[in-house]
Amino acid sequence: MQLLLLSPDEFNLRIAKVREAMTAAGIEAAVVQTNANLYYLTGRVFCGYIYISADTAVDPVFFVKRPVVLHGDNVVRIHKPENIASELARAGIHIPGAIGLELSLVPYSMALRMQAALGASSITDVSGALMAARAVKTPHELSLLRVSGAKHDAVYRKIPRLFRPGMSDIELQVEIERVARLEGCLGQFRVNGQDMEIFMGNVLAGENADAPSPYDFAMGGAGLDPSLPVGADGTIVRPGMSVMIDMNGNFTGYMTDMTRTFAPAPLEGRALDAHKLSVDICRELARMGRPGIAAADLYNRAVAMAEEAGLAEFFMGHRQHAGFVSHGVGIEINELPVIAPRSKAILEAGNVIALEPKFVIPGIGAVGVENTYVVNTSGDMEAITRSPQEIIIFEE
Amino acid sequence: MQLLLLSPDEFNLRIAKVREAMTAAGIEAAVVQTNANLYYLTGRVFCGYIYISADTAVDPVFFVKRPVVLHGDNVVRIHKPENIASELARAGIHIPGAIGLELSLVPYSMALRMQAALGASSITDVSGALMAARAVKTPHELSLLRVSGAKHDAVYRKIPRLFRPGMSDIELQVEIERVARLEGCLGQFRVNGQDMEIFMGNVLAGENADAPSPYDFAMGGAGLDPSLPVGADGTIVRPGMSVMIDMNGNFTGYMTDMTRTFAPAPLEGRALDAHKLSVDICRELARMGRPGIAAADLYNRAVAMAEEAGLAEFFMGHRQHAGFVSHGVGIEINELPVIAPRSKAILEAGNVIALEPKFVIPGIGAVGVENTYVVNTSGDMEAITRSPQEIIIFEE
Repeated sequence: MQLLLLSPDEFNLRIAKVREAMTAAGIEAAVVQTNANLYYLTGRVFCGYIYISADTAVDPVFFVKRPVVLHGDNVVRIHKPENIASELARAGIHIPGAIGLELSLVPYSMALRMQAALGASSITDVSGALMAARAVKTPHELSLLRVSGAKHDAVYRKIPRLFRPGMSDIELQVEIERVARLEGCLGQFRVNGQDMEIFMGNVLAGENADAPSPYDFAMGGAGLDPSLPVGADGTIVRPGMSVMIDMNGNFTGYMTDMTRTFAPAPLEGRALDAHKLSVDICRELARMGRPGIAAADLYNRAVAMAEEAGLAEFFMGHRQHAGFVSHGVGIEINELPVIAPRSKAILEAGNVIALEPKFVIPGIGAVGVENTYVVNTSGDMEAITRSPQEIIIFEE
Repeated sequence: MQLLLLSPDEFNLRIAKVREAMTAAGIEAAVVQTNANLYYLTGRVFCGYIYISADTAVDPVFFVKRPVVLHGDNVVRIHKPENIASELARAGIHIPGAIGLELSLVPYSMALRMQAALGASSITDVSGALMAARAVKTPHELSLLRVSGAKHDAVYRKIPRLFRPGMSDIELQVEIERVARLEGCLGQFRVNGQDMEIFMGNVLAGENADAPSPYDFAMGGAGLDPSLPVGADGTIVRPGMSVMIDMNGNFTGYMTDMTRTFAPAPLEGRALDAHKLSVDICRELARMGRPGIAAADLYNRAVAMAEEAGLAEFFMGHRQHAGFVSHGVGIEINELPVIAPRSKAILEAGNVIALEPKFVIPGIGAVGVENTYVVNTSGDMEAITRSPQEIIIFEE
């Protein structure tokens, strides 16, 4: 079975981006070993390592522990990282003294083990270079994201018919999970870093939206168990509540991120105003979002709109506030750029970001929308999640 | 909201076990920060850190970043790890020069950041001490595992009625996922370490059971997408195939692990023999498993039984073999002890292990069972997953 699932052109494009980012970071050679980055560089997750030289004369080498059936050009079966150095030497490849490793992701003891295995005098962090490369999607990656967006939309179209009066938030979530899985959702919710756990997404009904979670997600929820304190908590969905639905869009290995607000009965007043403002903020930021604009400007514009409307205290949470309004998305749910007040990021064509200007209204729940957008070379950002944005009343 | 969800007695019991393991490892003080260990020590997942001194005169201190609403004795709100040292100084706690961190789990750059934040001259790995403490469950943990086992059984009882002729493996899996979630399954499948990804478990039909996966799970499967190459691959379930079902048992924050073999029509010959042998191996190992027995002896006995039956080449995989027959289970699916040929572990009362002597029969699929057992102070190991063990024919 061929290891490399990317076309040669696609592989060369991605490796060139990574090499450029490595060179910019002064990294001569790197060993990559985390699932998301292995997938980015080959089109598949495997157990092993990729050796990448910034020197284009040295081809990447793929070291595979499992599965045992993978082969192809520059694919080498190994049993442990300690085999890498001798295999590189056999191939006539000189390992520099300073080696890039994914130091923001790889456990401390693994990093030291790899340093020793490579005989490297120093290790430096290549995580940022990979994140930077991955922040600008290739046309092939965009096509996978668009497929995820379309399937994500197909699932959301079915949500209004899944609700039955008397249902709890989690009962509704389970029916959405089923529909999403039957539509091809892979389920896995990839988060960069180890700290944030979530299962298939978030359905927040009523006051539960105001329960602060441990995670740096935009919205919280108490969850069903203190081992996973986020999301649905068993609240029975009743008229007067909003139900914010932010469910997994991983249909292709690339995730879209989409939120819609539903309700068993029409909402009015501040909740309705805040919801409409969320849609307006998305429209305004989509209009502003093009290559060269500062991420911080987008954030500040969103906050200014919330302030102008007198809704700042409810923006991005109420008892606990999230410190961003948008984030990059792709293989993982929290990619670059981050749209936050102190972000130094400048938007580039090929960035894919989820805008999620949400509000938590005490006594009602969470309102607002989230959409995933592509930054194009010109024109407004392109929404690749396209479900209707108004508050949707469940069908009975 | 009170941070500590454990009773004072339970908390003291767990801290005493961790301190004992720290002292055995020569670790004076440690900072714990991974979700599984935070949950173990407090009964909840939060974003923060616990400072633990091996000295019983120094109480543990809980540093909380999020959620912002937690409080209690020795609970300190902080914004970043750099606040820890001054807060400890304020409390009159002296930080030793050598600090234990979860170096097998915490990313390299986080470990160095924490070392600098604490002004520690050296850092040492406390992961093993925590794994050792967690390997011997407390009575309260056993009660949570028994609850998970009972709910896990309730889900498996419903499986035969979920199958419809013409279904694919993934369609069947989705219906099981739904029933499990409605029964209270939390979904999250906690794996120690970052490398192994799986979503809700594994349904393997026919030859797909022989597709090697990247992960060190007992069974493979090609999966539906190369970004998650494990488990169901869309195979239509047909008479003559086995369907091995190994689905998530996390109903309480503590996971039981259970596998049963189903089939649309009765299986005969080698597949049936191998299945019966799996049940026999479980029974034999459950009889052997008591405090003082070496894990390696259990492994060797299982292999010997497979060899005696002439089924060794199909044992624990066919094209790719797993190197263990059993593993500890609890908050994570891969706890201690590991029952493997070179394991030095000796069973202790309070260990909870999943025995999974499985076979992959070419042309048929995977057969065998998996059960979760408690090692008691005397007598056979106690199965806490108790569903019928024979090959179960789907109802139509």
